[in-house]
Amino acid sequence: MQIATPYLMFLGDVPDALAAKTAYGIKDWRPEWCVGQMRLPGCKADLGIPDLTLPEALAKGCRTLVVGVVNAGGVLPDHWVTEIVAAIEAGLDVASGLHVRLGAVPAIAEAAERRGCRLHDVRHTSETFPTGKGTKRAGRRLLTVGTDCSVGKKYTVLALEKGMRDRGLDADFRATGQTGVFISGRGVAIDAVVADFISGAVESIAPEAAPNHWDLIEGQGSLYHPSFAGVSLGLLHGAQADAFVVCHEPTRTTMRGVQHPLPTIRQVIDLTVQLGSLTNPDIRPVGIAVNTQALPEDEARALLDQIATEHGLPATDPVRFGVEALVDRIVADFPEA
Amino acid sequence: MQIATPYLMFLGDVPDALAAKTAYGIKDWRPEWCVGQMRLPGCKADLGIPDLTLPEALAKGCRTLVVGVVNAGGVLPDHWVTEIVAAIEAGLDVASGLHVRLGAVPAIAEAAERRGCRLHDVRHTSETFPTGKGTKRAGRRLLTVGTDCSVGKKYTVLALEKGMRDRGLDADFRATGQTGVFISGRGVAIDAVVADFISGAVESIAPEAAPNHWDLIEGQGSLYHPSFAGVSLGLLHGAQADAFVVCHEPTRTTMRGVQHPLPTIRQVIDLTVQLGSLTNPDIRPVGIAVNTQALPEDEARALLDQIATEHGLPATDPVRFGVEALVDRIVADFPEA
Repeated sequence: MQIATPYLMFLGDVPDALAAKTAYGIKDWRPEWCVGQMRLPGCKADLGIPDLTLPEALAKGCRTLVVGVVNAGGVLPDHWVTEIVAAIEAGLDVASGLHVRLGAVPAIAEAAERRGCRLHDVRHTSETFPTGKGTKRAGRRLLTVGTDCSVGKKYTVLALEKGMRDRGLDADFRATGQTGVFISGRGVAIDAVVADFISGAVESIAPEAAPNHWDLIEGQGSLYHPSFAGVSLGLLHGAQADAFVVCHEPTRTTMRGVQHPLPTIRQVIDLTVQLGSLTNPDIRPVGIAVNTQALPEDEARALLDQIATEHGLPATDPVRFGVEALVDRIVADFPEA
Repeated sequence: MQIATPYLMFLGDVPDALAAKTAYGIKDWRPEWCVGQMRLPGCKADLGIPDLTLPEALAKGCRTLVVGVVNAGGVLPDHWVTEIVAAIEAGLDVASGLHVRLGAVPAIAEAAERRGCRLHDVRHTSETFPTGKGTKRAGRRLLTVGTDCSVGKKYTVLALEKGMRDRGLDADFRATGQTGVFISGRGVAIDAVVADFISGAVESIAPEAAPNHWDLIEGQGSLYHPSFAGVSLGLLHGAQADAFVVCHEPTRTTMRGVQHPLPTIRQVIDLTVQLGSLTNPDIRPVGIAVNTQALPEDEARALLDQIATEHGLPATDPVRFGVEALVDRIVADFPEA
């Protein structure tokens, strides 16, 4: 999946910013691709970029209308369909993070066929992948793993991409979730791949590369999460990760969506090394990323110091304190790369 | 997915018995459902059951035409389509293990719609599942796990179903692969489920049950297989297995389809207990099933003795020596069930 950029961001008439979370993520990380937004009357989200009509968006070079919002009830409202069809008629591709497939809406499917535009359903994939082979491939790969879902794995790899490039390293973000796919313009929502092809899909999106090239792979779920551990394990095996960063949210008491307690950071490190060594015996942790948003700054710094000491690894909050410490460790541990 | 029985087995004109492997598996385990076979000129497979015309099959009560064969090249040949459409016109449902969806063939889709018959694509699923919750549920569950793919996991649970029922236990086979779905008339090919829903699908097909009921769940892949470990882990977590049997093929040197060496039985036991304890802390091994087909009988018996002694568990070849020893152990370990 390769999405043409730049984007016109469609926000519909969502009732709050949370319903446009994906759109905000895209705008935060790829502001240069987010040329403008299209909002319908009553929309309560605002990306802080120009509101554009279709002719204005085309004049500014927009190639794709991005539907980075959540719709209530899972059904695409008729007045959104009208706008999406108008965008297609005007010559834009459409990329959507909705559960419903764009092509399942007859008016959209017909318009797309007539105009020859491309419809991308980021939550779905029609791509087929070979099964994973586990054969050692060249290039370096870093994976973010977690004590839970939604603890900052995507943010951490994106911050690392920027931090490593700033340091002159050759590093690319590799998306495995829907927001990530919009941010990179390609990739695969790995949770939408058929089960047999999880590790194979990761081998495809982070293929063999130059020895000093880093693919920074967005992790998903947790090896300790009873709903999603299979996805996390397939990702780990497919990544053949040389290095991993553990992501953690210190105020959570149970894992997201279930009653299970969070594992410790130590447990996640140990299990990741144990299971990851199947496809890369040299896998090692290079740091810990902690979301300290809920803590005052002095407590956050004290917690990070304690976690760093306890595990013998750099610990940081990438949002609050940057990723310098992690990049230092990567450079030190992989001097040739 | 619930497939109406009994079956008329469609063999097409496959060039050998291997291409009809699924059909043979169904006939071996559910001979009472396999009323007859339908073969085209040149067919080199023979299930040893009556060749029936459509009127004969209907007269004998057949409800579903089962396409349990592999077609070369992945395309459904026109002369097979003709026969399938004729079966639909005659009033049969159709269930297929082909990669191509029946509904993707216009002539079949049209006939099915016109006649109101059901098309089952066992390799695909349009069913949606909730994500796994990992919440403890009543009933007992046994899972077969393996040192590799294709080492007898399905055969072992089917043999256990028969052996446990013969002993008066309340036990049901739960299918997770395509042949298994035909054999049980329901279930889900777990490798066709979207990655996020592996454990949730298993929770659905082996739901809460009476405390003394056993669900015997067909395992898939191996926790040590770099292509499929994610599927195996999701299955293990979703099963909340109380008991597991390790399946092994002693002459294999590398895992199927990859260059990785086989893990030891001990490694598989230890990792299954370690990872399975996330959703069932009481998980335990109850035996080892070894495919000794390649060994003379005295060597096979010596090997089984050695494996049993080494692991402190009953070891048998279910095909050659039955599953009595495994059932004995299950009864001893779970006296209340």
